[in-house]
Amino acid sequence: MKVGIIMGSKSDWPTMKHAADMLDLLNVSYETKVVSAHRTPHLLAEYAEAAKDRGIKVIIAGAGGAAHLPGMAAAYTPLPVLGVPVQSKALSGQDSLLSIVQMPKGIAVGTLAIGTAGAANAGLLAAQILATHDDTIMASIEQFRKTQTDNILNNPNPEV
Amino acid sequence: MKVGIIMGSKSDWPTMKHAADMLDLLNVSYETKVVSAHRTPHLLAEYAEAAKDRGIKVIIAGAGGAAHLPGMAAAYTPLPVLGVPVQSKALSGQDSLLSIVQMPKGIAVGTLAIGTAGAANAGLLAAQILATHDDTIMASIEQFRKTQTDNILNNPNPEV
Amino acid sequence: MKVGIIMGSKSDWPTMKHAADMLDLLNVSYETKVVSAHRTPHLLAEYAEAAKDRGIKVIIAGAGGAAHLPGMAAAYTPLPVLGVPVQSKALSGQDSLLSIVQMPKGIAVGTLAIGTAGAANAGLLAAQILATHDDTIMASIEQFRKTQTDNILNNPNPEV
Amino acid sequence: MKVGIIMGSKSDWPTMKHAADMLDLLNVSYETKVVSAHRTPHLLAEYAEAAKDRGIKVIIAGAGGAAHLPGMAAAYTPLPVLGVPVQSKALSGQDSLLSIVQMPKGIAVGTLAIGTAGAANAGLLAAQILATHDDTIMASIEQFRKTQTDNILNNPNPEV
Amino acid sequence: MKVGIIMGSKSDWPTMKHAADMLDLLNVSYETKVVSAHRTPHLLAEYAEAAKDRGIKVIIAGAGGAAHLPGMAAAYTPLPVLGVPVQSKALSGQDSLLSIVQMPKGIAVGTLAIGTAGAANAGLLAAQILATHDDTIMASIEQFRKTQTDNILNNPNPEV
Amino acid sequence: MKVGIIMGSKSDWPTMKHAADMLDLLNVSYETKVVSAHRTPHLLAEYAEAAKDRGIKVIIAGAGGAAHLPGMAAAYTPLPVLGVPVQSKALSGQDSLLSIVQMPKGIAVGTLAIGTAGAANAGLLAAQILATHDDTIMASIEQFRKTQTDNILNNPNPEV
Amino acid sequence: MKVGIIMGSKSDWPTMKHAADMLDLLNVSYETKVVSAHRTPHLLAEYAEAAKDRGIKVIIAGAGGAAHLPGMAAAYTPLPVLGVPVQSKALSGQDSLLSIVQMPKGIAVGTLAIGTAGAANAGLLAAQILATHDDTIMASIEQFRKTQTDNILNNPNPEV
Amino acid sequence: MKVGIIMGSKSDWPTMKHAADMLDLLNVSYETKVVSAHRTPHLLAEYAEAAKDRGIKVIIAGAGGAAHLPGMAAAYTPLPVLGVPVQSKALSGQDSLLSIVQMPKGIAVGTLAIGTAGAANAGLLAAQILATHDDTIMASIEQFRKTQTDNILNNPNPEV
Repeated sequence: MKVGIIMGSKSDWPTMKHAADMLDLLNVSYETKVVSAHRTPHLLAEYAEAAKDRGIKVIIAGAGGAAHLPGMAAAYTPLPVLGVPVQSKALSGQDSLLSIVQMPKGIAVGTLAIGTAGAANAGLLAAQILATHDDTIMASIEQFRKTQTDNILNNPNPEV
Repeated sequence: MKVGIIMGSKSDWPTMKHAADMLDLLNVSYETKVVSAHRTPHLLAEYAEAAKDRGIKVIIAGAGGAAHLPGMAAAYTPLPVLGVPVQSKALSGQDSLLSIVQMPKGIAVGTLAIGTAGAANAGLLAAQILATHDDTIMASIEQFRKTQTDNILNNPNPEV
Repeated sequence: MKVGIIMGSKSDWPTMKHAADMLDLLNVSYETKVVSAHRTPHLLAEYAEAAKDRGIKVIIAGAGGAAHLPGMAAAYTPLPVLGVPVQSKALSGQDSLLSIVQMPKGIAVGTLAIGTAGAANAGLLAAQILATHDDTIMASIEQFRKTQTDNILNNPNPEV
Repeated sequence: MKVGIIMGSKSDWPTMKHAADMLDLLNVSYETKVVSAHRTPHLLAEYAEAAKDRGIKVIIAGAGGAAHLPGMAAAYTPLPVLGVPVQSKALSGQDSLLSIVQMPKGIAVGTLAIGTAGAANAGLLAAQILATHDDTIMASIEQFRKTQTDNILNNPNPEV
Repeated sequence: MKVGIIMGSKSDWPTMKHAADMLDLLNVSYETKVVSAHRTPHLLAEYAEAAKDRGIKVIIAGAGGAAHLPGMAAAYTPLPVLGVPVQSKALSGQDSLLSIVQMPKGIAVGTLAIGTAGAANAGLLAAQILATHDDTIMASIEQFRKTQTDNILNNPNPEV
Repeated sequence: MKVGIIMGSKSDWPTMKHAADMLDLLNVSYETKVVSAHRTPHLLAEYAEAAKDRGIKVIIAGAGGAAHLPGMAAAYTPLPVLGVPVQSKALSGQDSLLSIVQMPKGIAVGTLAIGTAGAANAGLLAAQILATHDDTIMASIEQFRKTQTDNILNNPNPEV
Repeated sequence: MKVGIIMGSKSDWPTMKHAADMLDLLNVSYETKVVSAHRTPHLLAEYAEAAKDRGIKVIIAGAGGAAHLPGMAAAYTPLPVLGVPVQSKALSGQDSLLSIVQMPKGIAVGTLAIGTAGAANAGLLAAQILATHDDTIMASIEQFRKTQTDNILNNPNPEV
Repeated sequence: MKVGIIMGSKSDWPTMKHAADMLDLLNVSYETKVVSAHRTPHLLAEYAEAAKDRGIKVIIAGAGGAAHLPGMAAAYTPLPVLGVPVQSKALSGQDSLLSIVQMPKGIAVGTLAIGTAGAANAGLLAAQILATHDDTIMASIEQFRKTQTDNILNNPNPEV
């Protein structure tokens, strides 16, 4: 497993599934797990502290509201952590975004967009990180990018 | 010590000092300590898990930005946790407030106002919590309240 | 009755019911009542001023929009008051949250999250406050916390 | 006294003074008084309930943060109440504005702009309300309006 | 006609109808008219300039988005103008609210809450303004207020 | 005069001067004038209605707070109107921006950034509009653009 | 073709269609094309750089979220560029608006309202720009404006 | 050079210097360059397209306002791009943050906090990315993390 995808609740899966789908598309291996910063803080500490030795290279963490999961995962590991703000009910993810991105100096979380686009891009960015040292993944990314460019070039008419 | 006041950084002290001052005024014993959710997560776990057995009754936690300290303290203790959003530089504490108050169901943080007024009120609310079972503290609170009411009643003219 | 749950309108009940449900789960006695700061200000004054002598230990107040109920209840009692911002129609509870949390120094409201999660956590925090001096409630809270932790530990797969 | 100007704290006077200055300019009599919704709730009830019989026609209330004064004054009197959101420290009056303007159906507050412009306009609007039945005040207002129009017409060059 | 209710578009009527309904309830005469600041600026000037001589005492203006109608009506008349921010599609009335309430010193608009509650309260506040010199309307208002208070006092149980 | 620069108050000149400076730089003739939507509505109507016949091709209007000047100018002329949100005191121009940009269908204002950058760009965009039919102005713009590009290409080191 | 309408995705067409419809109504020729700043940056550069020589006079660009299309189009052409913030899912177009309007000094985008009203007004403003040198288009605009004014004047009753 | 630090203007250097300082501290080689998405779009394309073949592994891009630099860099390279929202004048970086983080599916930017803390963390996260395949950098990061933890553990008293 190269990438660990964790999320605070099963209800985050419809969002975080887009990270998994992107990694599938790019042929990057991953695992998925529910880990709650608030309800299972010890599990989070264990998971994040063990991740590097288990061979995980990047952690993707998704959470909503007072979203502490990405920042706390980052506190327990030197691996790069990517945060996905899940769209929350009352505040549409504005709370999730600020809770994830506004980390203090010294512990970093690379934050993506609110919701499913952000989750997909977390998968993509994780692959880009791996691709800095893996030509096969780099080739997959370049093919993915070429395909999405061609999709527009070949369908320039918005009206059909 | 009845109240534990923790904060993510020494730079939070000018804010959190107002919690300590209020507890001093109300004759409630407390301790103060820098504990960072992100930089010292193990210390936070130890502090919060040990607090109850050490006789602490209420924890006041202040932090700014992606303020995870109050919520993570609450994750490690059944004691009531009060959160103080420290006014952050770029977003004036809007990030701190949402990161503290928007906790998911199951782990609660009683959140006060942004900045020094919130810190003072965290001290006051901690005392009110203790006063539910301590007549001496209740008497201090009622005296404090009477004094602040009288200060207005005796000085009704805004122009002097 | 240990806890008084008040709200500004019957339309707040679908939110505030979650506070009652949590107290039921934790075996804490409570009462519920519609009390409007704006439409029944005298009733609010009477309710809040009498609460302590009636044996109430914590007041939970929920309101939406220009949500004055929690702050005004706090103005009339030395008991701890917890505020629940009900999700409002146009501004999704951003108005409710700011109206409740941004109290001036001297009168405190412990504020929870917007909406049903906040209401449930108000019930939980009220119980935690009582539990500082009641071992039976403390045991209930610890059991509740253990159950919600186990629910995740036993169901770590987000995809099923 | 035709107009009662109240405010939650002496610190609001530098803002609320602009309401008084406008009423002076328009020759409308007024009184000023510190009345805090949170620290002197009984005084507020007494003041607002007695205002009509004392001959007050309009109440102007200024407050900042969780600004409950205008709405609570309105709860205690059938007189028109005008609210001035005082610019708060952390949130620049956004909290004050929403706490004042987002009143529920049934109790109204006519809200002006944040800060000194809003305070001046509260004085102006109070005079406009009185002028609906007072030709002298109406003449003062029309003269004030003509002067401010002429000031621009006679000084159209922004560069000098 | 004592009150003129104007709005920028027919699509504002479902909101502004609540102002009319409140005036009906309080037995205050009014007229309703579509007047657009942007599409019929001359009509707006004529309407607002003629209103006082036609016997109108208060103008209620509702608009959404870049809501210029209330402020421009106020620019053309010395009568009190009340503004209702209609809930807009993308920004839920936050744009309407700021466009109406943030008037510069010298031209005032008394602003009510976003949406139908604000519209109803505009009707109520218009009546309160008239009632400062009309005992019959004052009696209607006091009856309305008593009824809404009694509705709560007689139905204190939120659960039924 | 090809461009009319109007603003609601002399206090807007330090911002709007940047529009004039840009037009000077591009050799486009312009005039400047204080015209207030709220304090001189008739002057605004006259100015905007006469502009086309006076040979004005583009109107630049700057205002702050409840900024009605650009939208009302647009209501009175078929010429293109560009709006500059002046940075306001309490809300830093968020009110100005929304009041200018959120125009309803049928009356358009091309809105620039808050503050001096927006004012300069209003001058630039006005010139670009004229340049669609004026090769001399087009040449000035292309020279200006080349210069600002070269300034970066020739000074790529941020540290000196 | 006088106007080029570009958008970042086919999913923007239901919004941007309103720009096309307005240009149809005003008899202004245009073309539509999907061009993505992020997925087809070279196509964007080519399109924007070639537009002037192809006879395009105004570019309308619509995009949502981190909406870079209008600003990047403006970076590649001296033609006037109008930006339409498409209403985004999580943040309702607040992100789109700020990403488009807050351009730095030196590259300007004339920004319209969020969503379909903004798109329609982008078409209208493009026509107004062309009309500064085309009497036929000016006549179409004046007829459009007259019609929309008459629609209100002839239907002043909001209730039917 | 392993990391390329680019920024839209020299005025961003006081912020972006913190990224360079962090990389210096961790002994990671980097280059710095002013590249503007709006004023030098061709340079940006060339820089980002050539980066991978020049051996750059991670790009850090900082920009303020309508901050298009990080997203456009990402559009031109398969390398991981980290974005730093520079604190803007009027909106304190809220515009910068949304313009950088809200990228559409298919082109990702890992976004850090607003201002200097975000810049420092961009340097740290770039190092963490490199450290996934470089044990020397990993050791530097772990030493840095240990030092900042020890700094708190050894100085727990906030009051001195």
